Amino acid sequence: MTSRQMVLGMQFSGGYGAEPGAWRLPGANLNSYTDMDQFVRYAHSAERGKVQLLFIADTPVLDMDLTHHAPRQAIDPMLLLTVLARETERIGLVTTASTTFNEPYNLARQFKALDVISHGRAGWNAVTTSTPAAAANFGSSVPPRAEKYERAHEVIQIVQALWGSWEKDALLLDVEGKRYADMDKIQPVNLQGRHVASRGPLPIPPSEQGQPVIFQAGGGGYGLELAGRYASGVYANPYTIEDARAQREALRDAAKRAGRNPDEVKMLAGFMPTIASSREAALERRRFLDEVVDLHQRVRYLGTMIGLPLDPDQLDQPLMAQQLADAMPSPHDPRSVRALEVAREGWTLRDVLAHGVIDYHPVVAGTAADVADHMQEWFEAGACDGFSIALDGFHDGYDAFVDQVAPILQERGLFHEDYEGTTLRENLGAHEQYGLDLRLSQQARA
Amino acid sequence: MTSRQMVLGMQFSGGYGAEPGAWRLPGANLNSYTDMDQFVRYAHSAERGKVQLLFIADTPVLDMDLTHHAPRQAIDPMLLLTVLARETERIGLVTTASTTFNEPYNLARQFKALDVISHGRAGWNAVTTSTPAAAANFGSSVPPRAEKYERAHEVIQIVQALWGSWEKDALLLDVEGKRYADMDKIQPVNLQGRHVASRGPLPIPPSEQGQPVIFQAGGGGYGLELAGRYASGVYANPYTIEDARAQREALRDAAKRAGRNPDEVKMLAGFMPTIASSREAALERRRFLDEVVDLHQRVRYLGTMIGLPLDPDQLDQPLMAQQLADAMPSPHDPRSVRALEVAREGWTLRDVLAHGVIDYHPVVAGTAADVADHMQEWFEAGACDGFSIALDGFHDGYDAFVDQVAPILQERGLFHEDYEGTTLRENLGAHEQYGLDLRLSQQARA
Repeated sequence: MTSRQMVLGMQFSGGYGAEPGAWRLPGANLNSYTDMDQFVRYAHSAERGKVQLLFIADTPVLDMDLTHHAPRQAIDPMLLLTVLARETERIGLVTTASTTFNEPYNLARQFKALDVISHGRAGWNAVTTSTPAAAANFGSSVPPRAEKYERAHEVIQIVQALWGSWEKDALLLDVEGKRYADMDKIQPVNLQGRHVASRGPLPIPPSEQGQPVIFQAGGGGYGLELAGRYASGVYANPYTIEDARAQREALRDAAKRAGRNPDEVKMLAGFMPTIASSREAALERRRFLDEVVDLHQRVRYLGTMIGLPLDPDQLDQPLMAQQLADAMPSPHDPRSVRALEVAREGWTLRDVLAHGVIDYHPVVAGTAADVADHMQEWFEAGACDGFSIALDGFHDGYDAFVDQVAPILQERGLFHEDYEGTTLRENLGAHEQYGLDLRLSQQARA
Repeated sequence: MTSRQMVLGMQFSGGYGAEPGAWRLPGANLNSYTDMDQFVRYAHSAERGKVQLLFIADTPVLDMDLTHHAPRQAIDPMLLLTVLARETERIGLVTTASTTFNEPYNLARQFKALDVISHGRAGWNAVTTSTPAAAANFGSSVPPRAEKYERAHEVIQIVQALWGSWEKDALLLDVEGKRYADMDKIQPVNLQGRHVASRGPLPIPPSEQGQPVIFQAGGGGYGLELAGRYASGVYANPYTIEDARAQREALRDAAKRAGRNPDEVKMLAGFMPTIASSREAALERRRFLDEVVDLHQRVRYLGTMIGLPLDPDQLDQPLMAQQLADAMPSPHDPRSVRALEVAREGWTLRDVLAHGVIDYHPVVAGTAADVADHMQEWFEAGACDGFSIALDGFHDGYDAFVDQVAPILQERGLFHEDYEGTTLRENLGAHEQYGLDLRLSQQARA
């Protein structure tokens, strides 16, 4: 089988599921936020399904209202991934860490330690931070965008140089000759940027994959340039196939501009499936999840999406004939076309919302085949290289995906039957790299 | 049994042992530096021995020559302790983290996450950093001492406030009432110091012990004040009983000055035992360990300790009569008196050094009973509240201590027969604390 196959990553969030009401699902473990055993069970499920990686999105702040919603994030992503590193064998372990509010030495040390502990399965989603409340946790404010990205380049380069500061054959372990290591092969990096600097070396030998794999998220020209230069995987949030293809082309162009083969950069599109025995059962599940959501506010927002002044009192009724005639999708929200499509099918507004038309990623609420069909369509249209999957609720969602959706994708030849190797670099098809990418320095010299 | 009993902590270092040649010991796992399974085996041994805590000393720098010596530190202490948290049940997990080169928000988050993951067994050894090469890893230099300690107070207070920012009963988990948490009980701390600041809250509920226990190391007036105010445990490096008693009294006075009960602060004295079947076997082991040490340099230093110009050629001879007559212990090194005592017993200089007279902590090289006798003498003399034990080589040292020394101490009523509870706070006999210590704020107001 030489044809192209998709890369799948599972998002972990706070432990319950991607939907804020997931903690209330019947059968869910109410302590999932702090119960590491529960995360381990989900990781085992994903690994049974040959999913390439687990991903923890993170921002160093608690800025959401937890009155009705469970936290969106993990108590600490590095420590959680360390737990999973010990209790899984093949699945990749990727987390976000801010280039804006961390020191490169600390980032380099923890990610490489995770890489060694996991035997070569760590990945770093290197992102800038834009949340003022996160900045305030560090007694700081958010720097201007250009400055944030200048620092991001410096941080990533210093981190990679530190990763390479302990050469691959530095360890000798020669008992007879009384030589532990070859100090000629453990050298400072002495990098000084405008924003950050580090001397090195790092006290850590290479892992089975050399060093962690770099991921990136966040668009715009600055983000694309960062991804094009350093990333092997990119988290993207397109809402339509057209948008996704445009984003993927822009990303591949950015990689080419950095002197790289564009196939080295995999774009993973965010995707939120609700998997059930039927479409009606899927909608019912999502109506339950929506019980903690402010639906009155959402009805009003739905109105702005489709160009109508909607009244929350209409929640349990469909759009009326006159409303359907007047409705027009907003050009300012890429989700609007689909929202109107669903409304035209005659659903009540509650059910229109239950279809996930205002969710952060595209939603498919249906059977395993519906979910697989959507993924196939996107993948074959060249919209992405794979998906970053945010399951609505984890306690039954992981097994549902692994036992029902993954086998369909495998049967269709779209997803691998087993892991290609033991490291994230092998399973992602990422290029070999140790230390800084020499092609980048050659380009800089040219 | 109500009489006072000792607290024992085991130092972990780079994985081989406290002596730089430990990696070469027959039977040692050569990959101990990166092999987490090996650390887990030692932790299991220590836990079988009812040792109260494991301790990882750390400085964020690799500034030693690894040509002959294994690293002194762990690849990453937080990640290593996370591994151990999952694979042990009762033993405390303590590591150093710098107040000089870390942000309070990051420290607060990782230590509290470790506390939650370990079910209340985490401890933070809060120290300032004085190594220029460590500062250079952060593109910085070492601040003046007064400034470093001013920042340390701010960091510890902000960390403790962040730990308390999620009140103990904030989590509701009320499925029927659709209430996840009580946001009135999850509040920002908004602390602004001269050096650091943080808004909060932290995204982490309390652990079984509320929050991590604070340790301190490092002497002088500034260090004592820090320990007196915040610490439940202090790592000290006295070389004689007299010195240790003086340090302990100064520490207890500092606690009293801060308005605390001095019994709340336990002083752990550093101690390096070599446990063997006989004194001769212990010396032989230490001679082997010394094979990677520069003994010529040590002979010269031994000379300055005992006031003689010693020639390395004398390594395998004892001091001559005239030398013994001329020798005088240096007042500048507290180890000198013992060094001369050992030399007077007629050992060759190689064997004088093998007694550990120039080691960082007091050394006893002998049988388990010799080791227990030393600990009893110090403990009963009021020299310490327990010991921070740096075993010369781990691969057989952990079991030797647990199977041979601990039972003697237990038999003599000096060491507990079992853990008092499940948390570090319980097993250390530390006071209850959640958030900032209110007595300190009352004192500040007075």
